[in-house]
Amino acid sequence: MRAIVLEGGRVRLSTAHPPPAPLKGEIVVRVLAAGICETDLQLIRGYMEFNGILGHEFVGVAQSGPYAGRRVVGEINCSCWTCGTCLAGRPTHCPNRTTIGISGHDGAFADAIAVPERNLHPVPDAVSTDAAVFTEPLAAAFEIPAQLTLGRKSRVVVLGDGRLGNLCAQVLARFCDDVTVVGKHHEKLALLDGLGIATALLADFTARRTADVVVECTGSETGLPLALEVVRPRGTVLLKTTIAGAQTMAWAPVVIDEISIVGSRCGPFDRALSALAEGWVSVLPLISRRYDLSAGIEALETAKAADVVKVLLDVDKDLIHM
Amino acid sequence: MRAIVLEGGRVRLSTAHPPPAPLKGEIVVRVLAAGICETDLQLIRGYMEFNGILGHEFVGVAQSGPYAGRRVVGEINCSCWTCGTCLAGRPTHCPNRTTIGISGHDGAFADAIAVPERNLHPVPDAVSTDAAVFTEPLAAAFEIPAQLTLGRKSRVVVLGDGRLGNLCAQVLARFCDDVTVVGKHHEKLALLDGLGIATALLADFTARRTADVVVECTGSETGLPLALEVVRPRGTVLLKTTIAGAQTMAWAPVVIDEISIVGSRCGPFDRALSALAEGWVSVLPLISRRYDLSAGIEALETAKAADVVKVLLDVDKDLIHM
Repeated sequence: MRAIVLEGGRVRLSTAHPPPAPLKGEIVVRVLAAGICETDLQLIRGYMEFNGILGHEFVGVAQSGPYAGRRVVGEINCSCWTCGTCLAGRPTHCPNRTTIGISGHDGAFADAIAVPERNLHPVPDAVSTDAAVFTEPLAAAFEIPAQLTLGRKSRVVVLGDGRLGNLCAQVLARFCDDVTVVGKHHEKLALLDGLGIATALLADFTARRTADVVVECTGSETGLPLALEVVRPRGTVLLKTTIAGAQTMAWAPVVIDEISIVGSRCGPFDRALSALAEGWVSVLPLISRRYDLSAGIEALETAKAADVVKVLLDVDKDLIHM
Repeated sequence: MRAIVLEGGRVRLSTAHPPPAPLKGEIVVRVLAAGICETDLQLIRGYMEFNGILGHEFVGVAQSGPYAGRRVVGEINCSCWTCGTCLAGRPTHCPNRTTIGISGHDGAFADAIAVPERNLHPVPDAVSTDAAVFTEPLAAAFEIPAQLTLGRKSRVVVLGDGRLGNLCAQVLARFCDDVTVVGKHHEKLALLDGLGIATALLADFTARRTADVVVECTGSETGLPLALEVVRPRGTVLLKTTIAGAQTMAWAPVVIDEISIVGSRCGPFDRALSALAEGWVSVLPLISRRYDLSAGIEALETAKAADVVKVLLDVDKDLIHM
């Protein structure tokens, strides 16, 4: 089968890759479409030292099991379900886990992928395949209200106008009246303006130390220091960016201002699928470009460009038309 | 009057210092005794670029106002009480504030100090002057249960066996059954052993990624990276250490493990004074050495030593005997 493989820091298209060998409890899923995430670009730069097939945002058709023949999306954490962490109700933090397309488990930029059956969620008929590609990042956005107590009047600033910043802003605007997205790109901010969400160019943004909650989605090492300038004393910075390597910053202000910094990663797929089915999250305008899987290397290059929001990979356009 | 003055990074005893000039709303307090804090040592190293009289842990006798002639302790944040932050109920974070002995306001290593009247708390008769010196750091320890929801069964690890680590551990052991203090000093840990609080030498400590809450009181730049090794996924690191300068660390683990890092500073004086009056916090054994104010420079040198817990300055032993 075809697969986009990362090996020793180099990424290549393998055209005769061995098909997935499902572990116990895993189901083979034929991939319909997949999305390129900032994390994929970070992995290529060395984050997690991952070797294997890339890709963790995908929609496919289950080849067996309870959803055989149906469209499915898959959670990315493959947990053991037997350790203390899993039994404590935190399976996404299982110390024995692999993570699809990120750590120890092949990903979805391929004709097929093996996924633990319990990670699969059927895609409602009301959700198109293209929209369903956004389930994983949209679930990550829904992790924010799962972690924080947000009020209608909470002042929220989202730093970053990219894929994840956009989705976080849409989710947060459902709960809070005062959401502002700060970014660098007119055309990306315009997508949010069109949804009635307030935006500001970083160069023009002057609100300092007033936000109750700052959501850091910049994908840049400058994001956290900037967030600490925007959040008010005793406010919360929610960290979404995972970047390779270390960063240097002064810590005393976090203590003096009693800031809470909260790491935030994967979220509830069911909330994301419901929101997509209800139609109140706008995801299709985020698709900037689409490529066939065979052109995946070019697609990854394109995803690095500043003016691109989401790049989709079409893996099998004929399997199910939606 | 006498005063221990920090100026341009150099600390000296001034024997003919001008007496305090109280601002509107301030009361002159004749100092009885004061405590040396890790922050004082950090200030000398350049933290906050402070110039003025050092000292923010003190007991004195109010010279006027509602507590005239009585022993008082004083909160260190001198707030404006008119800005949005103060009116929102966060006066300790007032952007217009000065901080006694730390930023823009002379401190208490002197024969007298001017303190805003609303910062003063009378010392209950049941609390000795020596014990009352610990009000400020003990209040900082009480800030932890004010910020976090702690359960009886929360697993708490306190990193650091110094002054603040000891007080935090005693307060937390009141709320949680499973508190362990990790430190480097046998004799400091022995103080906690004597109170029935579990301790471990850092070299022997192997519990990794299991603590629900880690309280970082090391006073060292290695404290936060260590705390992140000790806390469990989705656990909380409470940061107490304020250190000058920047530090370098990898950020991705905070996001991946969804850790909350919560800065924690000044706390409720009333809770601290009540605990001292009730007698369930043991503070007097923490006094390692005491010096007359005139020997304050030597006292500051002594406070740097690894085997010293708390150094007290006697300012006026004759004013009130308790």
